[in-house]
This record gives sequence, structure tokens and C-alpha cells, in this order.
Amino acid sequence: MSRHRSPATHAGFATRVTRTGQAARAAGLSGMLATPGPDLTYLAGYTPHVNERLTLLIVAPDRDPVLIVPRLERGDAERAEGTEGVTLVDWSDGDDPYRVAGGVLDPQGRYAISDAAWALHVLELQRAAPAVGYVPATTALPMLRAVKDDAELGRLAAAGAAADATYQQILQVGFAGRRETDIAADLARLLREHGHATADFTIVGSGPNGANPHHGAGDRIIAQGDVVVMDFGGTMDGYGSDTTRTVCVGEPSAHAKEVHEVVRRAQQAGFEAVHPGVACQDVDRAARRVITEAGYGDHFIHRTGHGIGLTVHEPPYMVEGEMQPLLPGMCFSVEPGIYLQGDFGVRIEDIVTVTADGGLRFNNTSRELQTVS
Amino acid sequence: MSRHRSPATHAGFATRVTRTGQAARAAGLSGMLATPGPDLTYLAGYTPHVNERLTLLIVAPDRDPVLIVPRLERGDAERAEGTEGVTLVDWSDGDDPYRVAGGVLDPQGRYAISDAAWALHVLELQRAAPAVGYVPATTALPMLRAVKDDAELGRLAAAGAAADATYQQILQVGFAGRRETDIAADLARLLREHGHATADFTIVGSGPNGANPHHGAGDRIIAQGDVVVMDFGGTMDGYGSDTTRTVCVGEPSAHAKEVHEVVRRAQQAGFEAVHPGVACQDVDRAARRVITEAGYGDHFIHRTGHGIGLTVHEPPYMVEGEMQPLLPGMCFSVEPGIYLQGDFGVRIEDIVTVTADGGLRFNNTSRELQTVS
Repeated sequence: MSRHRSPATHAGFATRVTRTGQAARAAGLSGMLATPGPDLTYLAGYTPHVNERLTLLIVAPDRDPVLIVPRLERGDAERAEGTEGVTLVDWSDGDDPYRVAGGVLDPQGRYAISDAAWALHVLELQRAAPAVGYVPATTALPMLRAVKDDAELGRLAAAGAAADATYQQILQVGFAGRRETDIAADLARLLREHGHATADFTIVGSGPNGANPHHGAGDRIIAQGDVVVMDFGGTMDGYGSDTTRTVCVGEPSAHAKEVHEVVRRAQQAGFEAVHPGVACQDVDRAARRVITEAGYGDHFIHRTGHGIGLTVHEPPYMVEGEMQPLLPGMCFSVEPGIYLQGDFGVRIEDIVTVTADGGLRFNNTSRELQTVS
Repeated sequence: MSRHRSPATHAGFATRVTRTGQAARAAGLSGMLATPGPDLTYLAGYTPHVNERLTLLIVAPDRDPVLIVPRLERGDAERAEGTEGVTLVDWSDGDDPYRVAGGVLDPQGRYAISDAAWALHVLELQRAAPAVGYVPATTALPMLRAVKDDAELGRLAAAGAAADATYQQILQVGFAGRRETDIAADLARLLREHGHATADFTIVGSGPNGANPHHGAGDRIIAQGDVVVMDFGGTMDGYGSDTTRTVCVGEPSAHAKEVHEVVRRAQQAGFEAVHPGVACQDVDRAARRVITEAGYGDHFIHRTGHGIGLTVHEPPYMVEGEMQPLLPGMCFSVEPGIYLQGDFGVRIEDIVTVTADGGLRFNNTSRELQTVS
């Protein structure tokens, strides 16, 4: 079977596998077990449908990775982007795939396993290899996918640029007299037009709805003078976008201008705190300090940011208590907000990556308070 | 908070919960743990997004069901279709939800748990309640959702009728000169036009592609004289459709007619074998016997059928070795086929439900070999 891959691509996956094995060893583990989902996509470039048949990548330090795969799906697995250096072991209906997997595992070992691996698979692995221990990957190896390589940074930058193009166009559509859901549908359409495969969330919180950070988009008709929070994104080429801007329909009030300016300064402070070696919590603290000093501390009711990559929420989290030092290549949101119950909300969000000497934004539209009609 | 539900609906969910507790006890278990997905939808009419935050329904005989839910999602859970008799216990970020769940479980108990529950949740439950045992629900309680109630039968019948209407229209579209993927796109569009929320599969296997039951739809251009297998379905109101018909583009050859007639008789024999108390394997045997006696036994290379409901493949399976007796209300496919490598394939599939005195089809389009242009 011909396998068309660039050596660069193959080397990229091989590097991820090697780093994962080393990280497992450093965490006192025998290796990492990845089931279909973001971990398997990351390590093997293979994204099969999730089903009850066991597909399991076994990564261990100083060993070639092994992929257990149903025989019917072996061809797809062989043609996947990152399986060139992977030993494939297939099984047929009637075989016990857990016994097959157990034969590859260190019988006394302890492995990280994908958080979303099915209970069916974990319980059957425990039955087939009872002395092996399992720990959730996000608990054991929280930073597994946190540092992005160049291929990933390129995709995240492209997704960010597409979200920015979407924002530029939404400013032109006309808000007054339309429902939040209408604007949300426009955002989803524009994300797709700019290359997104999925538009996963399109939050449009107008007036008092903007004060609820969990609001999606509803039937409320947007009125002249409303402050409107738009938080939207999806995936492009497998990687996520996520940006927020807050606009005003017509001329903003003095209060809206003041609150928006506090959030803008907080977001800038969070961004400027991004440097290699800085603890994640210090990004949160930098943004929060501006809001607290302006007297709105009680109205910033969520963490400052979350990592992004193959999923839209993943480590590292910019939150009080997270001591993880920032490393070049990490990517996450910086998104402070102020929520005034019954009145309005403001949030400004960019995806930021850590460079050798600071931060670089993947969202670069204006952060000034813009007006729409 | 107002809760708009018909008493009938509430009673339906309460009955499912009671039956599940009894089934767990009969299987020697303490109860059933359902996470977001078909089990939770079935037992509580609640279908949240799947994420890393623990949502867990605990069903045990002679006890009210308890739903552990993140505080942010409590409102949604309260408004769900089937949570009226459920005790909600919420938890906030910073709490240990597994300790909360462990406090509700029998500390020495043994529970079935949804197959697709996350490894993260199972491993953390094992940590928080180390003496509790867990078994995959499909292993322990395979028939949990197999017997459908009247509300479910109504939805499956409606989904089947929509698939039938799709088939009637696809006969008119013109096949010759178009790609399989074009016909597949037509099928998906028609399923949605007839009320489906999702079109999950639209297999179009023309000529030799029809001889591969795992073929989806490809670039092959359909030609005059081709035999074409179409196997399509999706979900409507949460429940699945799944039907297959095989057509000929223009006049069929004598061979195609002969093979099609064998499959038609096999499908009829499988259908006629459906009676309460008959073992699942006897449905498979009845259909297979017709094909074997016609000399095509080696070319019927899959089981005769699978259950259907909130998922498109679930127990009971019509397969050799499955001794489960059919019960009124069970729903499954009867779909024998003959696959002639390099030449063509034929498959005919209906969804059938078990009634008090036989079987009833939810697909009722002609099973004769129809011609298209």
C-alpha cells in the first residue's frame, strides 16, 4: 500500500511520540495509551470514528509505538498521516482485543490513558491485565499536547486569521432589530466561508444577556444602544479558533466606554505578562489586577484563559493556583471580562502563543470599542 | 422553575428507571450508572454535551434515582424531559464530584456503567470508592434499552416512514452517469427534508462496489445495467432509521434477478421467523437457510441484523450464538445480503419490531427489484 507522506510530517509525529514517552517516564509512568480522539490524532495523525471496537495506541519510552486496531480498519490506519513508524497489530471479531493489548503492556506497569477512553475499554483492560495501573492522561500528563510544534502553530494562526476575517465582516451586517440568533447564524456562516470545518460556538450576548458568560444566543431582539458580546470559534484543519469582541449598536454610553476600556487594559496587561517561565497564574493575576483596581473585581467571575489546540479547552489554564511555567509554543486564550447583572457585559479575547521573548497574538482585530449599526 | 411535562411522559421514564433497577438486581448488581449519551437520554430524557465534568445518574432498585450534575448545568437538568422523580445533587468547581458520587453508592456494591463513560470518570470513581466494582453496561445488562415502549415505537415508526419516503423519491432522480457520492448526497438531503435531524450514513454501492458491505460511496460513475445497493438512515426525534434497497439501472440481467429474488426470499423468511420467544439466532438461521440452499451461503458474510433505538447499532443482534429470546417491543434490522466479488451485491433491509404474535415492519417500500434510469 502506497503511503504518501512528507518526511517532515513523519518526523513531526515521531518527535511527539518520543516526547510523550519521555514525559511519561518523567512522571513515573510506563507509557501512554491513546484512544480515538485528540490524543490519537496528535500522536498518530489518525482520527477514526469512535466506536465499541478497541483502537489503542501504546507509547512507551525506548520502544516503537504499537497501534491495536480492528482488522476492518487496518487499511485506514495504515494510510493515516502519522503511522509510518507505528507497528500495527490488528484483531478480528471473535478475538479478545484486550488480551492482545495486555500482551504489549508491561504487566506490572502504570499507564496514562486518554481521558475520554470508553469505560468499556478501561474495565476490559483491567480484566485482561489486572496488575497494570491506569491514570487519566490529563491528571498524569496535563501538558502532553500543550507545547505546539511549527505545524500546529501554523494551523492555529490560520484559524485565528479566519476568525478575525469573520469579525471584520460581522461589523458590517447590521445588528439593530435582529435577533441574537440571527447574528450567531451569520458568524457561523462566515467562519465556514473563511475555511472553518465546524463553527462550534457563536455566543451573542446583547444588553443584559451579555452579563451572563454562559449565555449562548437567544431570541432577544438587539436594540439601538445595546452593548453586544460576541465570542465565537470552531475548527479549521483540526485546530481551534476562539476570539471575543464587544461592540456597541450606535453610540456607547459613558459607562460602556469606561467598562470597555478597563477590560481592554486588563487584556493588554494579561498579554504583556506572557513570557517563558512565568507561571500561568501570573497571567490571570496581571489581567485581574487591572479590573480589581478599577473597582470591578467582583464582576470578573471566571479564569482569564484556557489552552487551545486540537480541542478548544485544554491545559494550560490561566487561573489562580496554576504554577505551570509558560513554555515557548504554548497557546491559550487571554479573555478577561466584566459582567454587570441586568445591564451589560464586556469581554475581549485573543489566542496568544508564547515565543522566546514574550507573547504573540493570533487575533489581531481592533480591541477598541467599535460601533455597529 | 416551571416544568412542563405530561404525566404520561413522566410515567414512561419512571417505568424505565424501575425496570432498570430490577434488571440490575436480577443480574446480581447494585444498580446502573449512566453518563451522558444514550443511557442517560433513555433513563432521564437528559442529553447534555459530553465533557470532562461529571454528570452521573445512579439507578438502584427500591431507591429514588440520583443525578450528580455540575451546578452550572443544574437548570438544564431540572428542565429535562425525565428528571421529575430524580433527586438532583449538584457540585461546583473545586468540589470532588467523585466523592459526592461515592457517597451515594453502596460502598461494597457492584454497578453497571455506560460503555462510553469516560476513563477519567471511571478511574476517579475507583479512587474515591475503591471497594465498588464496575462492569460495562452492555456486558452486564445487554437488553437494558432493547424493549421499546410505545413512545419509542412511535418514533422508530416515524423514522422508518421518513426513510421510506426518501427511497420513493430517490427512485426518480436518475442514476446513470452520476457518481455514487451524488446519489448519497441526494439521500442525505431527502432524509433531512423528511424530518431527520441527522443523515448518519448513505451507502451507495454500484456494480462491483456493491459487493463490499463496508463500501460507503465513492467517485465511481454509475452506468447503465449497474446493480446499486443503497443503505441509508439517520436519526429523527432521537431515534434511528436504517433501510436498504437494491435497484438496477435499466433492465436487470437474469443473474441479477435471480440473486435479488434469493435475497428477497431470505429477508421474508427472516421476517417471518420473528415471534416472541424465538431466539435471535433463529432469525439469522431462517434468512441464512434460504441463501445457503440457493447455493450462495459463502456470499452472505455478515450477521442478519442489529437492534436499533437511540443508537443505530445496539443489542439484540440477530447472529448465530445469540440465544436471547425475542420479546414484544424489541426492534432490529433484518438485512440479509449476497456479495459477488468483482460483480455486484444485493442487500434488502427493514427495521422490524416484535409484536404479541409476530413481527411488524417499519419499512414498507417494495422489496421487488425496481429499475431506475
